[in-house]
Amino acid sequence: MGMDIGEWMERARQEVDAWIREDIEAMGVQPGSVEEAMRYSLTAGGKRLRPLLVLAAGEYVGLSWPLLKPVALAVEYVHTYSLIHDDLPAMDNDDFRRGRPTSHKVFGEAMAILAGDALLTEAFVKMAELAEGAFEPRQVLKATQWLAVAIGRQGLIQGQVRDLAAEHQDIGLDDLRDIHLKKTGALFEASVTIPAILANASEDAEALRHFGRHFGLAFQMVDDILNVVGDPALLGKATGTDAGLGKATYPRLVGVERARALVNEESRLALEQLDAARYARLEGILTYAQSRSW
Amino acid sequence: MGMDIGEWMERARQEVDAWIREDIEAMGVQPGSVEEAMRYSLTAGGKRLRPLLVLAAGEYVGLSWPLLKPVALAVEYVHTYSLIHDDLPAMDNDDFRRGRPTSHKVFGEAMAILAGDALLTEAFVKMAELAEGAFEPRQVLKATQWLAVAIGRQGLIQGQVRDLAAEHQDIGLDDLRDIHLKKTGALFEASVTIPAILANASEDAEALRHFGRHFGLAFQMVDDILNVVGDPALLGKATGTDAGLGKATYPRLVGVERARALVNEESRLALEQLDAARYARLEGILTYAQSRSW
Repeated sequence: MGMDIGEWMERARQEVDAWIREDIEAMGVQPGSVEEAMRYSLTAGGKRLRPLLVLAAGEYVGLSWPLLKPVALAVEYVHTYSLIHDDLPAMDNDDFRRGRPTSHKVFGEAMAILAGDALLTEAFVKMAELAEGAFEPRQVLKATQWLAVAIGRQGLIQGQVRDLAAEHQDIGLDDLRDIHLKKTGALFEASVTIPAILANASEDAEALRHFGRHFGLAFQMVDDILNVVGDPALLGKATGTDAGLGKATYPRLVGVERARALVNEESRLALEQLDAARYARLEGILTYAQSRSW
Repeated sequence: MGMDIGEWMERARQEVDAWIREDIEAMGVQPGSVEEAMRYSLTAGGKRLRPLLVLAAGEYVGLSWPLLKPVALAVEYVHTYSLIHDDLPAMDNDDFRRGRPTSHKVFGEAMAILAGDALLTEAFVKMAELAEGAFEPRQVLKATQWLAVAIGRQGLIQGQVRDLAAEHQDIGLDDLRDIHLKKTGALFEASVTIPAILANASEDAEALRHFGRHFGLAFQMVDDILNVVGDPALLGKATGTDAGLGKATYPRLVGVERARALVNEESRLALEQLDAARYARLEGILTYAQSRSW
């Protein structure tokens, strides 16, 4: 606990990377298998922000890292599935992600669809593994349901559907906010709420959920801003793609300067319901996420 | 229990259809929503074979229909997701399914991918609902894990990957059998095993699993035979498509007559570990499945 936040994040990221590597090794990857495509996307050097939030929220409610390993893997697998499917030609049609060709460019569309499906499914295998640990089965089920609802038709997927529908359309700030809450916010929300559900800490769950929502909004705004003013070399992906697709974004609706002010406002809101004596890790990740290079 | 099997199947199918309709209504379908695409595929008039197997296996272990509603919905949602994704241009590229245009022909590829994702995710929402019923949370988690493993990278998805890889390739009977066990067998296996897991009846679970594997093989053989000799009007989909894709099938490897003999052999094996005093429903569904019009 004496570590500064940069050190903590680096250690947590290394731990998560090690868990992912171990899990992939345990899969026994064969050439031409779906696991090969899963591995490709899982080891593409992501920031592991969602697993880090799981661990930080875990510390907030008094849970140690190893207990939360299945949750950390599950949220990263869900995130990776959503990226693979989002990048498909029928969706955002992105050729590069994190500086490398996207899954369908390397393995073909069929395999990319199936790798996404397999990662989504594997997330639920991981969640069920929580029952082998210290948690009450009833809380594990509640957490699993929470994840499924967050990433399903009323959450992440609805956000994605509405985001696609909003291309080349005029939508207002309220709609945009609601799309972001679902497309990006729902998985962040689940990442920080699930540890509290597992710990059976319902008040903390509410406060963490509030944090996750506003964290997600701030994060998506930063992403949109970076798509306008970011450096493609630093980002590992093309910029200006949102404008090309006619996507509704905060920079388009309110301008870059006002969007930056909104990032600060959402960041403030994220922390307001949390206990300041315990929130150092969560605040640190928030600061990191909103100060990505732009 | 006095009903004949035809009457039982008809009643069970009506019950399952009603559950699906209710569940869709509860979703509140908006125009342009992912639920609209989910509804389209869920109400396309499927045989509901997997939910029927859930109910029949439930009766085998002494569970009433209402208790198994979430499982019946979950397996049908998983089945429907797998059909939607299989039909995509990047996969089997089918334009018709059950006599109607496939999801991507009606809603576009992006929505079809997302509708599949949403159905897969919703299946796990349903499974978690089992905890609100009469079952022990620990058994519900075990059943959920069973489903996730069956339909994941070592089960259904692996079967699909290997099936695609086998197009225009020479593969032997052992490989073909293993592909079928995964692509088709795994979900049948899960459908009949999950009720026994929920009922905490481990011996029955083993015997039902054996039934599910051989049922799945017989079913897939019949499907492959129908693709050669079936009537497209009766089937609601084109025939001859396997040959067009250079797919490995039993008819291609051993001829239609030998494939029919193998169907009978698998059907015999399916029942061999079950208690004959209790297996009437399961036997009835098996007979129905292997005598589809050819």
